[in-house]
Amino acid sequence: MALIAVDWGTTNCRAYRTDGAGAIQKTYSSALGITSVAPGAYPGVLTAIRAALGADAPVLIAGMAGSNRGWAEAPYAAAPAAVLDVARLAIPAPGERRARLLPGVRMAAPHASDVMRGEETQIFGAEAADGVLCLPGTHTKWARVASGAIVRFQTAMAGEVYHLLRTQSILAGSLSGGAAAAEGGEGFLEGVAAAQDGRFLHAAFSLRPRSLLDGRDARWCEDFLSGLVIGSDVREAGLAPGTAVTILGADALARLYALALRAGGHVPIPGDGAQAFARGAARIARHIVWEEAR
Amino acid sequence: MALIAVDWGTTNCRAYRTDGAGAIQKTYSSALGITSVAPGAYPGVLTAIRAALGADAPVLIAGMAGSNRGWAEAPYAAAPAAVLDVARLAIPAPGERRARLLPGVRMAAPHASDVMRGEETQIFGAEAADGVLCLPGTHTKWARVASGAIVRFQTAMAGEVYHLLRTQSILAGSLSGGAAAAEGGEGFLEGVAAAQDGRFLHAAFSLRPRSLLDGRDARWCEDFLSGLVIGSDVREAGLAPGTAVTILGADALARLYALALRAGGHVPIPGDGAQAFARGAARIARHIVWEEAR
Repeated sequence: MALIAVDWGTTNCRAYRTDGAGAIQKTYSSALGITSVAPGAYPGVLTAIRAALGADAPVLIAGMAGSNRGWAEAPYAAAPAAVLDVARLAIPAPGERRARLLPGVRMAAPHASDVMRGEETQIFGAEAADGVLCLPGTHTKWARVASGAIVRFQTAMAGEVYHLLRTQSILAGSLSGGAAAAEGGEGFLEGVAAAQDGRFLHAAFSLRPRSLLDGRDARWCEDFLSGLVIGSDVREAGLAPGTAVTILGADALARLYALALRAGGHVPIPGDGAQAFARGAARIARHIVWEEAR
Repeated sequence: MALIAVDWGTTNCRAYRTDGAGAIQKTYSSALGITSVAPGAYPGVLTAIRAALGADAPVLIAGMAGSNRGWAEAPYAAAPAAVLDVARLAIPAPGERRARLLPGVRMAAPHASDVMRGEETQIFGAEAADGVLCLPGTHTKWARVASGAIVRFQTAMAGEVYHLLRTQSILAGSLSGGAAAAEGGEGFLEGVAAAQDGRFLHAAFSLRPRSLLDGRDARWCEDFLSGLVIGSDVREAGLAPGTAVTILGADALARLYALALRAGGHVPIPGDGAQAFARGAARIARHIVWEEAR
């Protein structure tokens, strides 16, 4: 059965037409994340998606569109949460036929409450059914999946702290303004090494004397800062030695996480985030009873 | 012998008239830090300081005014550095009689190079001659003094990261916009506790679910963020249990550092930053041979 799987987040809306197994046949994307969509404008965006990808297929919407800041609120499934738990809590998109909004997943643990919306769909579609998954980004998610259920997860403010330090802090003066080398330079691995003793505030400042006193150039410094933040993120995940980690993310960033994981003695497994999303949506869709097509 | 001791930093210029023991008799301050003073304008500022505090006393200038971005560069003294080492490297303020610019102190160690300018003068004037000192702020300095010499020190990007997270990050939406309670609320100590496992990026993000899911109010969240950053800074200092730490800083911030140090099992000793600066300058001045007054 064909399906339209929509990853409707805060700043973007990406939709995929898939076959029943989740293979992507056609893609649609726009910058109409929920912060750019007025309350009454969701049906119009959905109409555009259907026009682009086919009006015949049912639509499954994951991400912030299902939050209290989006189209309508689908309350969280509690972790541990499997495909069926998420499917059961899907709600109809208001006023629409054959379109559902998915819930996110919530962890409720003392000092470890956390939520995800959209990532659960990617996680359910990862190649490896069980294990540790890393979804790097502005707020990186680390999740553990056992017997097909998201057992626990945590979020780290990795990409956002990196961006703030790069652009707004005293460190900006030592940087090139370019991106970190996607393959990771020498500075990247020194940044990863500097992250290992868990002294982030000190290691961040240390970039300045490395630049001003040790004569490291701006290119090296860009790599160091990237390595420090990604290395800290990996270290903070608290992985057992030699853990296999599926990385679901954009290519350049995923490569840097793979480097940091290898430096830490772990085994990165590259995953395709878009493909995982589409496959996860197809898995969830199988548990939903759809109205007949008119 | 009377002395004018000038703490001339990046954004402020504070001057003290002291007696020979470093007791403060009169204070002058302006916002004319080195970023606000044009290259040729330093003599004019000094004239204003002398007009306010007395033209009879010699002038000792510490801080960024002695850097390559300031009035003239007084090259760093290498750690371990004592009062005499710093005094010997003082240079005349260009074109001035009886006015000297002090060097800063530089650490050269693999992966631990660091510099200070101005803080060395405060440290030399602290009540306790030896031990650990903390100078909290935008870039907190931690220094170890033995036999009157600054043996080693490190800098943490504490205040700056706090400011960026408070005002520029996703956490801003959970905060009150007010300052952290100077006496430290319940949230402050939870923030200090959250800092203890050295997972800064994760602990920073955790403020969001604590706010959105656990219902912590904005006042509590302000205190938590402050406790997290200050608690991280203290933890990263790597103190042996029960270490006595002299805190040289502004009152409200010094109180919060004292709380975090006590929570970590250490013994904070409050110190007066301005008084320490004046006393340190007086100690350095005794080793300088001044021209005769005209």
